Amino acid sequence: MFWSFVQPVQISSGLVTIDGPQGHHLARVLRVRPGERGVAVSNGREYELEVMQAAGSRVVGRIVGDRPVQGEASTAITLLQAVLPNPDLDAVIEAGTAVGIQRFVVLQAERSVARAPGNRLTRWRAIAASAAEQSHRGEVPELMGPLSLSAGLEEVAGSRLLLLDPGADLPLGRAAGGSRSYTIAVGPEGGWTEAELTAFREHAAMAVSLGPRILRARLAPIVAAAILVQQP
Amino acid sequence: MFWSFVQPVQISSGLVTIDGPQGHHLARVLRVRPGERGVAVSNGREYELEVMQAAGSRVVGRIVGDRPVQGEASTAITLLQAVLPNPDLDAVIEAGTAVGIQRFVVLQAERSVARAPGNRLTRWRAIAASAAEQSHRGEVPELMGPLSLSAGLEEVAGSRLLLLDPGADLPLGRAAGGSRSYTIAVGPEGGWTEAELTAFREHAAMAVSLGPRILRARLAPIVAAAILVQQP
Repeated sequence: MFWSFVQPVQISSGLVTIDGPQGHHLARVLRVRPGERGVAVSNGREYELEVMQAAGSRVVGRIVGDRPVQGEASTAITLLQAVLPNPDLDAVIEAGTAVGIQRFVVLQAERSVARAPGNRLTRWRAIAASAAEQSHRGEVPELMGPLSLSAGLEEVAGSRLLLLDPGADLPLGRAAGGSRSYTIAVGPEGGWTEAELTAFREHAAMAVSLGPRILRARLAPIVAAAILVQQP
Repeated sequence: MFWSFVQPVQISSGLVTIDGPQGHHLARVLRVRPGERGVAVSNGREYELEVMQAAGSRVVGRIVGDRPVQGEASTAITLLQAVLPNPDLDAVIEAGTAVGIQRFVVLQAERSVARAPGNRLTRWRAIAASAAEQSHRGEVPELMGPLSLSAGLEEVAGSRLLLLDPGADLPLGRAAGGSRSYTIAVGPEGGWTEAELTAFREHAAMAVSLGPRILRARLAPIVAAAILVQQP
């Protein structure tokens, strides 16, 4: 069963037409064939399709059912993530999309060892789009950056700001609750500088820990997001 | 700061002696030098060390403090994990150790595409030992397998058995609570067979879900373990 995000214009008279690179991927790489089932997601709805035609770079499916998207978390999570050396940042975007992160705001932190590559946003969006299809999300997460810390903090104003800090006394599980909108801030392997920590405090960030074990920078944001998404 | 697991025999008269491959790793690879601090873990205690001597394949540290281990979860989690194609199984052992899994029981499931390699236990133990040092665990997780499903189920008798199943209605977060000992069972990418599912039911397994999003086999056990470890 395939899973594709489409534009409203691709839906007409009970049919969904997928062409271009996406149609090529379905018809040539996944080798989708007439009679197969799949899902096209558009604008908050999941359309169940039966493939009528698959040739060249074009797949046409008949809509046999539709429902509101099921794959979005009821808790909106933004990840404020410092640039990490690749492949770690790619892995965070891929796994973070699968666990349900809604928005990635990438920061160029003072101690970020790596610089984000020139084609960064295109690359990150492609990773997020592919991961959103594989995990059956209801939308592709939003991606922006790399921003300065102050610009990033402006972007996340209004959601509860949790700063992952292995030295914090407060476990994440006890800091969560009572909000439907969180931002998790995760620094580079070398941590934040004092100036960066001061900026977080000025934005009412709460320092939280994932326990006494040290998690790698690529794992910590995934674990934190998964815990927040799953809270009852 | 280094972190090493040592045997009680390596501790004597307030000194810890680390030689062999481990001493070589510290002295030659990590280039530990006199005056540096580190931790040696043995038998449930963390010994804080000041390095006195580091030469060849031998590091000697003076004990400057000790305390019970801090890095073990209060919830004992066993992962009953079907063999996955590498590098996925290695990644599960590495990240699972970091999030706090206490025991890995590897199963050769009917739909496991891969066979575990011949040197499997040696390899898995090396990965777990290295991940336990990097994450500052208080002990190296136990590893066994690959076992048949029935042998694996015998190994985990007595702990609460949770079967990860994307189709289950019960979210993991609501199934947890009231126990200090859980087993999480995670199948291969192709899922369990009907016969395997029957065996789980006969062992009172409770089917639980991580929500509507599809997680890859390498990510699902890590997310599940992290949620159980963090529960208040």
